[in-house]
Parts: sequence; structure tokens; C-alpha cells
Amino acid sequence: MAERRTRPVRDPARTRARILAAATGEFAEHGFAGATVEAITGAAGVNMRMIYHYFGDKAGLYVAVLEHLLGELRQAELRPISADGSAIDGLLEMFDTIFRHFGDSPALVRILSTENIMSAHFLRHSVATPQVASPSLRNIAALLERGRTDGTVRREIDPLHLYVAMVGFAFFHRSNGHTLSHIWSTDVLAPAWQDDHRQLARGMLRAFLACESDAPPE
Amino acid sequence: MAERRTRPVRDPARTRARILAAATGEFAEHGFAGATVEAITGAAGVNMRMIYHYFGDKAGLYVAVLEHLLGELRQAELRPISADGSAIDGLLEMFDTIFRHFGDSPALVRILSTENIMSAHFLRHSVATPQVASPSLRNIAALLERGRTDGTVRREIDPLHLYVAMVGFAFFHRSNGHTLSHIWSTDVLAPAWQDDHRQLARGMLRAFLACESDAPPE
Repeated sequence: MAERRTRPVRDPARTRARILAAATGEFAEHGFAGATVEAITGAAGVNMRMIYHYFGDKAGLYVAVLEHLLGELRQAELRPISADGSAIDGLLEMFDTIFRHFGDSPALVRILSTENIMSAHFLRHSVATPQVASPSLRNIAALLERGRTDGTVRREIDPLHLYVAMVGFAFFHRSNGHTLSHIWSTDVLAPAWQDDHRQLARGMLRAFLACESDAPPE
Repeated sequence: MAERRTRPVRDPARTRARILAAATGEFAEHGFAGATVEAITGAAGVNMRMIYHYFGDKAGLYVAVLEHLLGELRQAELRPISADGSAIDGLLEMFDTIFRHFGDSPALVRILSTENIMSAHFLRHSVATPQVASPSLRNIAALLERGRTDGTVRREIDPLHLYVAMVGFAFFHRSNGHTLSHIWSTDVLAPAWQDDHRQLARGMLRAFLACESDAPPE
């Protein structure tokens, strides 16, 4: 039976998670340069010494936030796919998960955008990130191979190109939602618009994966 | 016969263009907050008074840069389409133009990204921008309608959703090229990778536009 316990005075995992959550909000809102360690300690209810103890410095904390956010995306991508569907169903299920994940994680959208403005200055020092990513691509490659073998998926689709297209559908209208909405006088961040866009993307993915194209490359 | 003339001391159009070009570089590099009017006057070879004369203030100059960059995109989008191709050929030709334009205008990619980080704080005050944009969407709608009429294009494609997908293909791997390249250990900004991505996008667009989908929406 569960025993109610007093929260221990020091719980490293919980403290670390609390700092990460506070830092995610602060970096997403203000970017690396604009964020202050003071604001993060304030929001996390810890003192400065704790930040340096767990993360080294502000840059170390920022890289930890990037790795954490990308790790959550990887976890979503690696969720088991329904075993009874076709390869295309599996790929569309993975796409839905990616689409939903970016909708649920506006911090990931903002931090990836600002990190790219800085030419991935910090992420390029993360050794873990490429290692953590590779299983997602292997899953896509395996689904493509299964579909090629049973004749339901067209040949010669590169898994990374397909993945980048999937993430693009999930990312672009959100990262650029403010300018798109003004330019086209349409609220592209409204849930209904986003869901219509998911349907369009599913339609494109399904048609492309299934149709054997006879069109000459140009 | 062309007469060689001394450049006039004051040429408002040329001075304005020189200021815009310098400001585009400075805002693309440093964002609105990081850019300085001093750096722009230095690069343009004009004095401060000229900036205020032509653009009012730093914000006015920044909005003029946004409008100018988006105006160039619109001009590209509205380039006449070959009259002898199918509706799908026309839409793919338009896509190629958009794809090429974002490749040729890294400043547009960066400034749209930073403007979205600021929730389109400045662009939302541009009255001209939505007006200048609407003909592009009308062109897409006309091509879709032509293809529906002659039976080559599937029904019920929303022009704005199609346009956002097209721009996403041209934009996302570039705006996020630095993080994608590190995460996937592949240089997605290399010309060959970009061209392969254009081919994948064309394949998706072509398959989607042409295939009549029987799949139930989900």
C-alpha cells in the first residue's frame, strides 16, 4: 500500500527536473542571451549554487534543455506503432505523433528556431544528440523496407528526406504562424486550421508513399 | 545612343535602395534589437538624417525591409507560368520558383524566423503586406480550378494549405538546417541535399495533386 512520505530535503532528480522546467520556460521566452540565471533560480526555487552544481554554467544548462526537449521528441517518435496496420499506416501514425508533439511543445518550436538563428552554436557541442536520434531514422527505414517488400510503398525513398518533410509539416506553420496569419489574413494557429493542415499532410504522405511515379525527375 | 552621365548628387530611389540593402544585411545578421542604425548608416554610406528622412525611425526601416523582402517573394511567385503545361506542371513550376527564391534569399529566411520569435510584432502593423500577397493565392486557386475542370487535379484542395506546404518544403530544412545537420549527421544545407529535397517535395505535390484519394479522413 502506498505510504505517504514527507518530501526529502534533497532529491537530486527532482531538483534537476525543476531547474530544467524553469530553464525551458526562460530560454523559450527570451533566447539564450536574453535569459538570466537569476530568473531561472527564482522560478525553480533554488539557489544559484544548485544551477552550477548540476549544470556547470548557463551554457551547460541551455544544452541540457536542448537535449531534454529533443529527447522528449525522440521518445514520442519511438512510441510503438500498431502492429496490425500497413507500413503506410505505421508511417502516418508516426507522423501524427510528431505533429501532435510539436503542437504540445511550443518551447521546442521556439528553442529550435532561436538555436538555428545562432547557427546551432550550442547544439553542435552536444555529443549525445545524434546518438539519441538515430533509432527514429532506423524505424522509418524499417517501415519503408517492409512496405517495399510487400509492394505497398514506392521504391527509393530516403528515410531522412521523408523525416524532414514530416517534421516540416508539423513545424513550419507553427514556427512561422505569426507572419503567415498576418500575411494571409487567416489564423493558421487556430486548432481547426492546424488539424486541416495535418489532414493535407497525411494526404500528401499517403499519395506519395503509395503512388509509383512515372514522372521523369526534373 | 546612351549618354554617360555623372551620377546626380541626390538620387532618392538609389539612396533608399542602398539603405534598404544595408539594413537587410544588418537586421538579418543581428535581429531587430541587435541591429544598430549606426552600422546601417556605415554600410550604406549615408548619414543618420537620411535614415530618418526616408523611413521615420528604426522600426519604420525594419518594416520597410520586411515589406521589401516579402515583395520580392511575391514578384517571384507571380512570374508568368508556361502556358502550354498542365495545371500540375504550372503548380510545380511555381513551387520550383518559391524553392529557388528562398535558397537565393537567406536574409528572408532569417528575418522571417526572428520576426516570428517576436510574434510578428512589427509585421502585424504592415497594412500593405496582406494586400500584396493575395494575387499569389488567386493564381494557385486558378490553377487548381483549371485542373479540376479538366479532371487532372483532385477536388477540394485549399489553396492556402497547399501554399503553406509548398513554402514549408522550401523553408524548413533551410531555417532549421543547422540543428538538422547536427542531429542527423548530414549536411542538409549542401546543394545536392537541397536539390534531392526539392525532388522529394515535387514527388509529394505531384502524387497528391493527381491521385484521387479513397482513404477516409482520420
